[in-house]
Amino acid sequence: MIIDTLIEKIDEKRCPVVVGLDPLIQKIPSYIQQNAVDAYGNTTKAAAKALLDFNIKLLDAIHHLIPAVKLQMACYEIYGADGLDAFYKTVDYAREKGLVVIDDSKRNDIGSTAALYAKGHIGQPPLITGTAPAVASDFITVSPYMGSDTINPFLDECKINEKGIFVLVRTSNASAQEYQEAMIDGLPLYQKIAKDMQVIADDYCGTRGFSPVGAVVGATWPQESETLRNLMPNIFFLVPGFGAQGATAEDVMSAFNSDGWGAVINSSRGIIFAYLADKYKHLIQDESDFTKASVKAVEDMKEELLAAMKKKEKLPKGW
Amino acid sequence: MIIDTLIEKIDEKRCPVVVGLDPLIQKIPSYIQQNAVDAYGNTTKAAAKALLDFNIKLLDAIHHLIPAVKLQMACYEIYGADGLDAFYKTVDYAREKGLVVIDDSKRNDIGSTAALYAKGHIGQPPLITGTAPAVASDFITVSPYMGSDTINPFLDECKINEKGIFVLVRTSNASAQEYQEAMIDGLPLYQKIAKDMQVIADDYCGTRGFSPVGAVVGATWPQESETLRNLMPNIFFLVPGFGAQGATAEDVMSAFNSDGWGAVINSSRGIIFAYLADKYKHLIQDESDFTKASVKAVEDMKEELLAAMKKKEKLPKGW
Repeated sequence: MIIDTLIEKIDEKRCPVVVGLDPLIQKIPSYIQQNAVDAYGNTTKAAAKALLDFNIKLLDAIHHLIPAVKLQMACYEIYGADGLDAFYKTVDYAREKGLVVIDDSKRNDIGSTAALYAKGHIGQPPLITGTAPAVASDFITVSPYMGSDTINPFLDECKINEKGIFVLVRTSNASAQEYQEAMIDGLPLYQKIAKDMQVIADDYCGTRGFSPVGAVVGATWPQESETLRNLMPNIFFLVPGFGAQGATAEDVMSAFNSDGWGAVINSSRGIIFAYLADKYKHLIQDESDFTKASVKAVEDMKEELLAAMKKKEKLPKGW
Repeated sequence: MIIDTLIEKIDEKRCPVVVGLDPLIQKIPSYIQQNAVDAYGNTTKAAAKALLDFNIKLLDAIHHLIPAVKLQMACYEIYGADGLDAFYKTVDYAREKGLVVIDDSKRNDIGSTAALYAKGHIGQPPLITGTAPAVASDFITVSPYMGSDTINPFLDECKINEKGIFVLVRTSNASAQEYQEAMIDGLPLYQKIAKDMQVIADDYCGTRGFSPVGAVVGATWPQESETLRNLMPNIFFLVPGFGAQGATAEDVMSAFNSDGWGAVINSSRGIIFAYLADKYKHLIQDESDFTKASVKAVEDMKEELLAAMKKKEKLPKGW
């Protein structure tokens, strides 16, 4: 199962870090922007091409350090068809580099429509005759609030195509509590969703004790994360909110089990735009060195996480 | 404001019907499929081209009858970049034909990411220098469950670009009640969201008494719809679930105010694939006549709705 593959890659790299490939055109080194303009003018195609070139340079520099990348779909979709082309070319390149790829698009719709999203993101899109090969992404994030019939079609595609999903359980944003703490069956909504996810995992679990159905649990809510860790023993956590969103290595420790498994921590802006941070400026002679800052930012994040894990006696066996 | 434009078009056509352009490759007339295969082989590009050709023939036939179309993004996104190309070409064509266009993609994410979705769907995507013109779609559907910081960036783009949104308040699917009835502030979650939307509308309203911030309220829940109509006097309803999903003209009457305004009723499969229904087979000599069935299906739906409105004394003045 794909969750076993993710766990093996985390173990191999000794690194529970996911890098978020969430590029913004304004923050990309200007020589990459200029190359794209020279080729395609000041168009959406040029913007999308700049995102792709940026991603490829990053992946070349950091792929050996990390188990997985997460692509925020909004960063690509903003350029329509050109953006999706850059998205899927990045997915293909990341997989060639041996990385697990998480498509962060938080899709949600009624059952028959969810089935189309599922086939389009992790399944086999229907062609005029037969179907296309399965889409390359390994996981997709899914928004559960429309109920189980929005989740089930994604489960079907997971089983057919050896893929996985991460279901939003507790998001990292400030207003997450506005609706996610509504009460149902004596529990806040996010805990009810957690329990429902664990029920799925009870019957659908890999060899390492975790289900291909994972959960998004924001690092910005450490206490909630601890509760959720207990409610979902067989659910792997994808944890956003580290770094730029404010959460520290200490904050994310509750996402891990006592043996140090059960979570990957995502950082996006803090890694990919590290070359703009004062902390890393000394590493950069000119813009074309930008990936050196990202490499150091990944190494620093890994070191912080492993130090916090060690302190909590949560370092995985053999690390 | 765009909501005023939508209301004017409903009044002009005397028809509160939105047609859902939600094409599925397997259900498209085979001569359209064949033309696409001849041009592009059995590829995602051919599938996407067939969807576009199908949409254009439909729009040519029905545009004069209706105020608006809704495009279900999942039907296009399933073909990646090729699908998005078909999506936006359909949007452009529908607007050329004078229709209001609703992008049904139910996007949702944390604030900074929601801002990218908002710019990408109803705003001005950033280019390497400056921005692209505003995206052509008039409205987008938005999923509110991550809280207000997922809604606010869409509001900003509505105001800048004269666009609108429809926020999911009560979805039409069977499992909608699983999480949407969690209790908060003494109300079921969907009613709490309704109240929050009305607060937005209090300050942001067009000349016809409705806000560019509308609500999705499923026709499959007539009682809830009545409650929601009272909670949101200045919110226009986009009502899915008519026809193929089981709701009747009687069921949707509660979505309208006493004066017959306040809602558009969507039908997708029941209109666009009418040529496959026993009821309309007699209109079709061969497949290339398929739009004749869709025209009749729109006329029938309009007649049913207007008859039910008349019975309830809800026919708008002058109709």
